[in-house]
Amino acid sequence: MKMNLNIAVVGLGQVGNYLLNELNTKKKEIELITGKRINIVAVSAKNIKKKRKFKVNKDIFFKNPLDIFKLNKVDILFEAIGMSDGISKKVVETALRNKIHVITPNKALISKHGDYLAKLAEDNNVNLEFEASVAGGIPILRTIKEGLATNKITKVYGILNGTSNYILSEMRNSKDSFANVLKKAQKLGYAEPGNPKLDLNGFDAFAKVRILSALAFNTKISKYKCLMEGIEKIELKDIEIASQLNLRIKLLGISEIINGCLFETVHPCLVSKNSYIGNVSGVMNAVILEGKPVGESILQGEGAGPGPTSSSLLSDLLSILKGDIKKPFGIPNNKRKSIKCYNVNNYTNSLYLRFEVKDKPGVLSRITNRLAQYKISVKRMIQTPDKKNNKATVVIITHKTSELNSNNCLAKFKKDKDILKYPTLIRIHN
Amino acid sequence: MKMNLNIAVVGLGQVGNYLLNELNTKKKEIELITGKRINIVAVSAKNIKKKRKFKVNKDIFFKNPLDIFKLNKVDILFEAIGMSDGISKKVVETALRNKIHVITPNKALISKHGDYLAKLAEDNNVNLEFEASVAGGIPILRTIKEGLATNKITKVYGILNGTSNYILSEMRNSKDSFANVLKKAQKLGYAEPGNPKLDLNGFDAFAKVRILSALAFNTKISKYKCLMEGIEKIELKDIEIASQLNLRIKLLGISEIINGCLFETVHPCLVSKNSYIGNVSGVMNAVILEGKPVGESILQGEGAGPGPTSSSLLSDLLSILKGDIKKPFGIPNNKRKSIKCYNVNNYTNSLYLRFEVKDKPGVLSRITNRLAQYKISVKRMIQTPDKKNNKATVVIITHKTSELNSNNCLAKFKKDKDILKYPTLIRIHN
Repeated sequence: MKMNLNIAVVGLGQVGNYLLNELNTKKKEIELITGKRINIVAVSAKNIKKKRKFKVNKDIFFKNPLDIFKLNKVDILFEAIGMSDGISKKVVETALRNKIHVITPNKALISKHGDYLAKLAEDNNVNLEFEASVAGGIPILRTIKEGLATNKITKVYGILNGTSNYILSEMRNSKDSFANVLKKAQKLGYAEPGNPKLDLNGFDAFAKVRILSALAFNTKISKYKCLMEGIEKIELKDIEIASQLNLRIKLLGISEIINGCLFETVHPCLVSKNSYIGNVSGVMNAVILEGKPVGESILQGEGAGPGPTSSSLLSDLLSILKGDIKKPFGIPNNKRKSIKCYNVNNYTNSLYLRFEVKDKPGVLSRITNRLAQYKISVKRMIQTPDKKNNKATVVIITHKTSELNSNNCLAKFKKDKDILKYPTLIRIHN
Repeated sequence: MKMNLNIAVVGLGQVGNYLLNELNTKKKEIELITGKRINIVAVSAKNIKKKRKFKVNKDIFFKNPLDIFKLNKVDILFEAIGMSDGISKKVVETALRNKIHVITPNKALISKHGDYLAKLAEDNNVNLEFEASVAGGIPILRTIKEGLATNKITKVYGILNGTSNYILSEMRNSKDSFANVLKKAQKLGYAEPGNPKLDLNGFDAFAKVRILSALAFNTKISKYKCLMEGIEKIELKDIEIASQLNLRIKLLGISEIINGCLFETVHPCLVSKNSYIGNVSGVMNAVILEGKPVGESILQGEGAGPGPTSSSLLSDLLSILKGDIKKPFGIPNNKRKSIKCYNVNNYTNSLYLRFEVKDKPGVLSRITNRLAQYKISVKRMIQTPDKKNNKATVVIITHKTSELNSNNCLAKFKKDKDILKYPTLIRIHN
C-alpha cells in the first residue's frame, strides 16, 4: 500500500462534518498507528453554504459527488449521505468499481444492497467497511468478525435504536405520554425533527438486525420480513403496569437460528426490571451475543451521534490503512449461505395482553373463554376498574403460545362491542 | 505469507488442552475465514501421561519445549504455561528470536516483560498477541487497539478477576463467610485449589490493569505499584452493611490519567446497588472505557475458563493468519511513552470505615474527634450495639479525603484499647 492516501468525504451532515474535523485533527495520530499519511482531497454535499459546526475547505468542494471520480486520485471514500438507494448507492458502486475503498455508516444501504456491494468490493479487491452502521460507537461488527471469529454464535440481540430506548425510558421516568416525550426527544436531537417514523416503527433497528445476522451466522442478508413492530402503540399505561409487575418495556432486535432457519425480529419486549437489558436506559445501545465457546458477551455504548459514529468510521479507516484486504462480511461472499426464514407463525412467547372493556357482567368470562378456546392459558390476571367511565382494564399474562394462535384468538375480539379497542399485545422476553 | 502454517502449543493444562481441541476441530473454519491452512506440528507439557480431557497426539509431543525450535519449521507458537519468568519467558523469547509468531494468555509474563518482548517481536518482524491475557473471552485489547483506536481514552476500569467477583457475589447471596465461600469456589474450579492468593490479593487483576493502561494510554508498562488490595479482609458483615446502604462491594481495577500522571489501582470498592457495575455478578468480567469522542463503552463477558480463553487465543491466530504484522501494543514500541506515577497519597475518595469498639462512654466521641482533627468530615454514621458482648459496631461514611490523611488518622487508633481491631476501610467508587 502507498504511504500517502487520498480521502474523499461525501455527505456533510452532522456525521460527515464531525468526521471531517476528526480526520483533520487526528492526522498525526493516524500516522503514528498506521505509518500512513492521509490527505483529504475532496468533500461533497448538496449545499456548500449550509451552516456547519466545523469549517469546510471550499477549494475541494464538489456539488456533484460523482465528479469526484474524475479527479482520479481518491484512495478511500466515506459515504455519509445515508440513503438506501439513489445517489448513496451510485457513489458507493462507482467508488468500488474505481478500486476505491469505501467506508460508510449507512445501514439502510448495507442492509438492502450489502451482498451486491460486498461482491463488487471483493471483485475489485478493495475494502467495504461499515462498522458505524450498527450501534454507533460500539465496535460490534469487528468483534463478531475478528474478536469472536471461530465462535459458533447462536443468538444476537439487543437494544439497537437509541431513539426508541430514550422514549421508553423517559416515559417511565417522567410519567409523560408518548407524544409529549417524542417532542422532547426531537428537541434534544435524539429523534428526527421531521419524520422520526423509521426510528419508531422498528425499521432502523431491523436494518441493523439484518447486518448483525449476516455477520453472526455467515449468511446472505435475508430478504424476508419476519416480524417488525415499533414502539408507536406503547402507552404510558403499559409502562406503568409493567413497573407494577417488576418488568420494563424495551424495543429489542433479535436474530437467532431456530431449527436451522433464520429468525429476525424487532418488537417491544417485556424484560425483568433486574435483568441487564432492563437497565440499559436512555440513548444507550447494547448488544448481547451468545456463542460457543465464549459464552455470553455484552457490548454497551452510545448508539448514535456524530462522536460515537466517527469513532467507528475512523476504526474502519485504520483497519484499511493497516493493510490487508478484508472481506466485507468476514468470509468470502460466495461462501456465505442463503438461509430459510423461520415461520413467524411458530414464534412462541408468553404474552402481556391488555384489554380495555366495558365494566359489565360477562365480559371477563368472554375473554377467558376465548383464550381457553385457543388453548392460551392464563398465568396471571389483573383487573383495574375505572368506575367513573364505567370501564375496566384487564391485563392478562399468558403462558407460552404461538403467534398464529394469539393472532387468531385476538382477531375474534374485533366484533365484541364490549371490548373497546384492539387488545395491546407485548411479548415477554425470556 | 505462506498458505500452510505450522503451529506449536506449549503447555497442556486446562487452557492448552482445550485450545488444542479447538484448533483440531476448527481447521476448516479457519481456512474459510483466512484462506490459510494450519497444521499442528508440536505440543509440549511436563507430563505426557497426565489425564486430559482431549487426546494429545504423542508423535508430536516434546517434554522440553525448547526442543521444538530444533524442528525449525514452526510458524506460530502458543505459550500456555503461565509463569511470569522461567521457562515461559524462555520459550517466548526463543520463539520471537526465531521469527516465530507468539500467542499467549499469560498476563504475568506480559505485565512484567511486555515492553521487552514487544521490542523483540518488532525487531524480528513477527507478531506477539495476548488478547486472552485480560478478561478471558472479552476482546477488550483488540477493541482498544482497533475498534476504539483514535479515541482519547481517559479512564479504563472494571471487574477483572472472576474469582474475587464470584466470592463477593456468593457471600452476599448465601450469607456465608469468606472462608466457606472460598472453599466452595475451589470445589467449583473458580479458584485455584492449592494457592488462590494471586486471585484474592489483587495481584492477578493488577497485572491486567497494567496491560490495559499500556494499551489505553500508549505508554510503557508501569513499574510502579500504586495501590493494590485484594478481598481477603472483606467480611460478611461489611457486605451486609453495604446492602443496607444500597451499596455492593466489588473488586475493581482502575487505571486513569490524573494531572498527566498514571494512576493504577486494584482495591475493593463500594458501588451503588443500581449501577451497572454493581450488577455484574458471579465469575463475569466487565470493562468500562471512557473515551472521546466515543463516550462510555462497556464490554462484559466470561472472564476465565478454557472456553472463553480459547476464543481469544483463536481470534489472535486469525489476526496473524490474515496477514499484516501488528505492533503488540498498537503503536511502535519506541513511540510508547514512559509516564510518571500519580502519588497515591493524593488519591481521594469517600470512605466506608467500620470500627469494632467496646461499648462504653467516650469511645464514639474519641473516634469523631480524631476524624475532625484530620478534617475528615462525616456524611453518615450507623452504630449497632452488640449488648451481649459489650461491643458495638460503628460504621462511618465520610466525605472525600486523601489516602495520606486517612492513613495517618486511622494509624492513631492503633493504641486505643477500646478499638478492638484496626478499622476496616473500603473506598466508595463514584
